[in-house]
Amino acid sequence: MNDAVSIAAAVRAGKVSAAEVTKAALARIAARDHELNCFTAVTTETALADAAQIDQEVAQGNNPGLLAGVPFAVKNLFDIAGLTTLAGAKINAKNPPATQDATAVTKLKQAGAVLVGALNMDEYAYGFVTENFHYGATRNPHDLRRVAGGSSGGSAAAVAAGLVPLTLGSDTNGSIRVPAALCGVFGFKPTYGRLSRAGVALFSSSFDHIGHFARSVQDIATVFDVLQGEDDRDPICTKRPLQSCLPQLNKDISDIRIAIADDYFIKGAEAEALAAVQKVADALNVTEYVTLPEAHRARAAAFIITASEGANLHLDKLRLRPHDFDPATRDRFLAGALIPSSWYLQAQRFRRWYRDRIREVFQNVDVILAPTTPISAPLIGQKTMMLDGEEILIRPHLGLFTQPLSFIGLPVLSVPIQSLNGLPLGVQLIAAPHNEALILRVASVVEDKVMKISHPKVCSEDFSP
Amino acid sequence: MNDAVSIAAAVRAGKVSAAEVTKAALARIAARDHELNCFTAVTTETALADAAQIDQEVAQGNNPGLLAGVPFAVKNLFDIAGLTTLAGAKINAKNPPATQDATAVTKLKQAGAVLVGALNMDEYAYGFVTENFHYGATRNPHDLRRVAGGSSGGSAAAVAAGLVPLTLGSDTNGSIRVPAALCGVFGFKPTYGRLSRAGVALFSSSFDHIGHFARSVQDIATVFDVLQGEDDRDPICTKRPLQSCLPQLNKDISDIRIAIADDYFIKGAEAEALAAVQKVADALNVTEYVTLPEAHRARAAAFIITASEGANLHLDKLRLRPHDFDPATRDRFLAGALIPSSWYLQAQRFRRWYRDRIREVFQNVDVILAPTTPISAPLIGQKTMMLDGEEILIRPHLGLFTQPLSFIGLPVLSVPIQSLNGLPLGVQLIAAPHNEALILRVASVVEDKVMKISHPKVCSEDFSP
Repeated sequence: MNDAVSIAAAVRAGKVSAAEVTKAALARIAARDHELNCFTAVTTETALADAAQIDQEVAQGNNPGLLAGVPFAVKNLFDIAGLTTLAGAKINAKNPPATQDATAVTKLKQAGAVLVGALNMDEYAYGFVTENFHYGATRNPHDLRRVAGGSSGGSAAAVAAGLVPLTLGSDTNGSIRVPAALCGVFGFKPTYGRLSRAGVALFSSSFDHIGHFARSVQDIATVFDVLQGEDDRDPICTKRPLQSCLPQLNKDISDIRIAIADDYFIKGAEAEALAAVQKVADALNVTEYVTLPEAHRARAAAFIITASEGANLHLDKLRLRPHDFDPATRDRFLAGALIPSSWYLQAQRFRRWYRDRIREVFQNVDVILAPTTPISAPLIGQKTMMLDGEEILIRPHLGLFTQPLSFIGLPVLSVPIQSLNGLPLGVQLIAAPHNEALILRVASVVEDKVMKISHPKVCSEDFSP
Repeated sequence: MNDAVSIAAAVRAGKVSAAEVTKAALARIAARDHELNCFTAVTTETALADAAQIDQEVAQGNNPGLLAGVPFAVKNLFDIAGLTTLAGAKINAKNPPATQDATAVTKLKQAGAVLVGALNMDEYAYGFVTENFHYGATRNPHDLRRVAGGSSGGSAAAVAAGLVPLTLGSDTNGSIRVPAALCGVFGFKPTYGRLSRAGVALFSSSFDHIGHFARSVQDIATVFDVLQGEDDRDPICTKRPLQSCLPQLNKDISDIRIAIADDYFIKGAEAEALAAVQKVADALNVTEYVTLPEAHRARAAAFIITASEGANLHLDKLRLRPHDFDPATRDRFLAGALIPSSWYLQAQRFRRWYRDRIREVFQNVDVILAPTTPISAPLIGQKTMMLDGEEILIRPHLGLFTQPLSFIGLPVLSVPIQSLNGLPLGVQLIAAPHNEALILRVASVVEDKVMKISHPKVCSEDFSP
């Protein structure tokens, strides 16, 4: 049992109990998380109660759901009833506990999944490294000296380390895709508005997406199907018919036009990142290239809007409690508070133009391949990296290839690829809005054909009790 | 013939020719506009050709339209094919001529109206006085020493002076309603997005409305019916069924709940402005009051968004040709360019809150009465006024009562009321979005019952040739 779907199948068939699976997950967390630092809270008591409930359903012959007995955990910006939502911030620690679960948490529970805890992140989701000043750095399971990526670092590392097979995260500029790549797991960010953000602490509302991490395409597709659907609690959430992706994973992708992103997306990456893309392209027999025009401007505009919206959201706290912020986050928010409105408006104006241009690109291609990050996981504490002979800051630049895509809400899956240096990397599969199914169909073929990730020594390859 | 509808009826009936009516209008402009300074261009040649065309239609027994032979003119930010669109700016004077008419101009022409010229305004529509540095001040027909109001000052004064019975203007924060009040004519700003802005130079896109000036409610309703309808050239323009208002002017308003705006809207106005509102309330037997909560914040937020959006739109020109701006406009744009993005975002955030609150208010009332301006027309060159014992700047504060309404796109008609000091004032009739018909029905009763405006000595009461 090395993924969520096989656990659920075993639980439903009575081959293993949800209680056993849950206890095993809790035991792995207890044994290994002190060095990984993925979890900021473990909900042992409610997890065991929920698991017992699932087992009762099974005993009574009821269907306990697509994710019966699957342990999962969520980035600590998702509301969990009874727990304070930290969003990675010390300032939030004194907030009252949430009174209800975030919609996404509720949906997973309704499908039988068992929540076991909350996961570490960059403060207020503003970062790509999860070196959290208050709650410590999350360590990369493949090399504990290295970062897990961020801002959903705890979510990626917990799946990579085999603590749980399924986690939720959020992605504003790459915060699901970057840690997924650096930790060697699948990280999926569906179309903007596709999944409900109700009960999720926002960062930059016009960019914020939620999504999930798992170890197989089957898991990613199953959880996407579970999370879909409109939500009265979230006015942004798309009102459109559900589009089940699972039945479409039939390995026939002959009708899908695939191309490699060139120009911006092949500059400024280490050779191993481009080799990962080539490996996927070769497996798919893809030789076409496509250009996303002005991607560098899209990234610049994404920076401006994110910093402006984030600073506005946290302005009162920046005024009253600046000393209680993570220094790295505070300085970026303060800079954001000083951005002129004219820059913000120009960035939004450009965004409309860019959205129209990318819509045109997707008239000739269905799925686009690009690297997720320019490098594999840097060391914890490392400030700069060399790219194209230039020394640049790591923290903002890990999102080089993710920002121009979330900027206009495109659905993207980061698939894990084993790189030559032994560390994982990611390749982004990108589609037009609401074409998640195309991405998952291609991913399913990539998963079969491309060399699998070596799982890190620190953790089990199996979620069996 | 003292309004557009009666002119059109006479032309259709062959009692007078469009050519005669047009020549009479051109003669009035030639005789009087040198002292009024309403017009920045007179389109004599095309006007006479268009009028001849209408007369030919009449001669052939065709229906030449609802506005057959009615002379009209437009604020010089509407595109007129063959003319450079000035938008009140010297910088625009070297622009190439427009290649096609603005949609609103086309619609009026299609209804048989005859365009006779373009009208003066504040530079880039940023002002409430029409004291244009480049093209001179437009003078108030009721007292040539006084301003016409702005930014659509030429449009209001041209109707008040009897040069033409119909003009178009634009209203971002009050630019139709303020000059309508100060010049003693009807000025109508329908719901945001209701009328196409295609071919109109924008100022602050999320606020900009177009609308019209006339001397009777019948004219206002007729022109509104002509201008309605979706437009492929304007993505903002509402896609909803036309709602003809004309048949609804039946003088029975017993089903309409009317109230007077209190709190913010009865503070900071001169006694005569409140007396004008009382006069309308008395005529309608209205004794109820209603509060628009946080209207002062709505005005502050409107200032911030307008200045930010306006500065962004003109940023290149502010950088390259600051010396070519109207000094009064330049300083406000430059200030706008320095507004932090966080203020802009907070203003937009408040705007959503305020829109929801006002929606609640309209559950208990249909039409709200409020003064249009706090004072009657100030002198040209006058910088300050006394309000509530405080000396404040005139230029920004004439919009005190109009800004909180356009802020959320409400439809408003300013109806002219004769004040005790002999100068006109306006009373705003305000409704929920898309309830223009309710406003026009109430206005039609006010028009019958409330003392008519004494027309200024400078001009005729009759548009007959």
